[in-house]
Amino acid sequence: ADAAAMALARERQDRLTKPPGSLGVLEDIGVRLAGAAAACPPPMPGPAALAIFAADHGVHAQGVTPWPQEVTAQMVANFLAGGAVANAFAAQVGATVTVVDVGVAADLPAAPGLVSRKIARGTADLSRGPAMTADQAVAAVEAGITVGLDLVARGAGCLLTGDMGIANTTASAALICAFTGSDPERATGAGTGVDAAGLARKVGVVRRALEVNGLTGGAPGPVDPVRVLAAVGGLEHAAIAGFVLAAAASRVPVILDGVIAGAAALAAAALAPDCVGYCVAGHRSAEPGHAVALRHLGLRPLVELDLRLGEGTGALLAYPLVGAAARVLREVATFDSAGVTDK
Amino acid sequence: ADAAAMALARERQDRLTKPPGSLGVLEDIGVRLAGAAAACPPPMPGPAALAIFAADHGVHAQGVTPWPQEVTAQMVANFLAGGAVANAFAAQVGATVTVVDVGVAADLPAAPGLVSRKIARGTADLSRGPAMTADQAVAAVEAGITVGLDLVARGAGCLLTGDMGIANTTASAALICAFTGSDPERATGAGTGVDAAGLARKVGVVRRALEVNGLTGGAPGPVDPVRVLAAVGGLEHAAIAGFVLAAAASRVPVILDGVIAGAAALAAAALAPDCVGYCVAGHRSAEPGHAVALRHLGLRPLVELDLRLGEGTGALLAYPLVGAAARVLREVATFDSAGVTDK
Repeated sequence: ADAAAMALARERQDRLTKPPGSLGVLEDIGVRLAGAAAACPPPMPGPAALAIFAADHGVHAQGVTPWPQEVTAQMVANFLAGGAVANAFAAQVGATVTVVDVGVAADLPAAPGLVSRKIARGTADLSRGPAMTADQAVAAVEAGITVGLDLVARGAGCLLTGDMGIANTTASAALICAFTGSDPERATGAGTGVDAAGLARKVGVVRRALEVNGLTGGAPGPVDPVRVLAAVGGLEHAAIAGFVLAAAASRVPVILDGVIAGAAALAAAALAPDCVGYCVAGHRSAEPGHAVALRHLGLRPLVELDLRLGEGTGALLAYPLVGAAARVLREVATFDSAGVTDK
Repeated sequence: ADAAAMALARERQDRLTKPPGSLGVLEDIGVRLAGAAAACPPPMPGPAALAIFAADHGVHAQGVTPWPQEVTAQMVANFLAGGAVANAFAAQVGATVTVVDVGVAADLPAAPGLVSRKIARGTADLSRGPAMTADQAVAAVEAGITVGLDLVARGAGCLLTGDMGIANTTASAALICAFTGSDPERATGAGTGVDAAGLARKVGVVRRALEVNGLTGGAPGPVDPVRVLAAVGGLEHAAIAGFVLAAAASRVPVILDGVIAGAAALAAAALAPDCVGYCVAGHRSAEPGHAVALRHLGLRPLVELDLRLGEGTGALLAYPLVGAAARVLREVATFDSAGVTDK
């Protein structure tokens, strides 16, 4: 991100016809958008393109969720038919929806809006060994990069992350522990709905995954992000990490959705720390690991409504707020130009 | 609000293709919209019409703000010229902006978008006696009702409250204390920017206002809302209270902005408790009294970004979230219709 444009944006915020600082967090978002575009005022962050990366998880076998694995493929069909919450929210904010199969454990018929980049039919069980090979993880990162660059080439001015993958909050918790050194107890949540016994089992699965894959001990030194992704990540996590890198390389902001995106952004940040400057935290989900990830990334979320759905829904809700932050720098009069007395 | 439509909406939320409860606060908003319209699914809450009620305050003489009083009229001109943050946010979400002069202490030239309902050239100093006569308070409530009914008659499907009035966070704090029994120390904040000494002075002014007007002692019995508005309110507070009543009478949702709207909504709720069912709390401002007011009203805010600007900016930012809540009930497929396996 461009430090000069950020300084200009900060200085401009204080000359606009509003008390200094009175737009709170949105002032920081405006500065971030200016830094991403290396321009003040920044361009409007749009049009918006949501990519929902879908994949399955071998750890599903450990009973970490009450939902059957087949729901991943069924929800892909629901996205393509326009019937999911992500579709409704995308319609609300004027975003396009692209669904990317990076690892669904079923054959998906070709359909408009579906990009097939299947790398495997789901991952292996991360609680018994690495979820993927290093080659698979790299291929998934590359798939995410390609999808991101493609959307920007077709005109997108803002990328939004989405995900679908039954059991993927378990992989997210493991990634967050590996990258931040957090304990599984603190980073693991109920996801889309396990009970107390299920949560305890899930914490145990995450702990075992870290042990089996040699990732315990609080990330004492620099970790190899591809090794971590391969060991305890999902194909959609790796792809979202690549998608974030594509946004940064294109100087386009990327709005992160929930805990899956937060875990993926940790991997992206480990690969290329500067990419965090292009990230906006769309929301904070009800998953406790998400707050851990955002704190590690230094990002403050825009929307805090106890969402725990995924799909990109939190990123979509945040998108108009990001647009509003850009408009402040682009459209609001200064004290001088409006003839308003400064205090 | 209609209990049957609310029950239908609650039941429908659980059949949609998402884990039950996974949309957090937005599920409650959807239920509220169904109740307001007495229909499930509810209509889309739009088009959106923001009314910015502008007025001046005699308590300005007590040094409760670093901003000169003339800024109220200057900002009205800025709204009408399209240069304020409220204009930028209205453009972002597709809302119309109407500015209503209910008590600016200056002659405002007629202009498109300006409704003149001036009741006085500012209020009297609430720390030395009643800010208004009862007749003035009633006239301001009526002005707000008329503006609200007018906007609905011209097609608005969602009303948004806005305000402009240098020193109006002082009157808001006094109203909140009078209606909730809160202590001035807890309900008074820095507004648009007083320092620690200024804040201490402001707390003292609020305390004196309650004493002088016989409103101390924690609202032991039912208070006469018109008497409270007249004693320590502003003309814009009274008008916003009327505006809220107009929304409820029209069965249209109203998105409350910040602490000024929160204080006004307490008055509206005291006049007609059922009107709260038509209110959505757009955001929670940095002013401590706002949280006190929202708790008393039983409303959870949608946006929490440390905004402290007023003008309707928090209501405007919340508007797309309210739209998204309606779309969930209108557009999202059920497990049955989408062929997705329920857990």
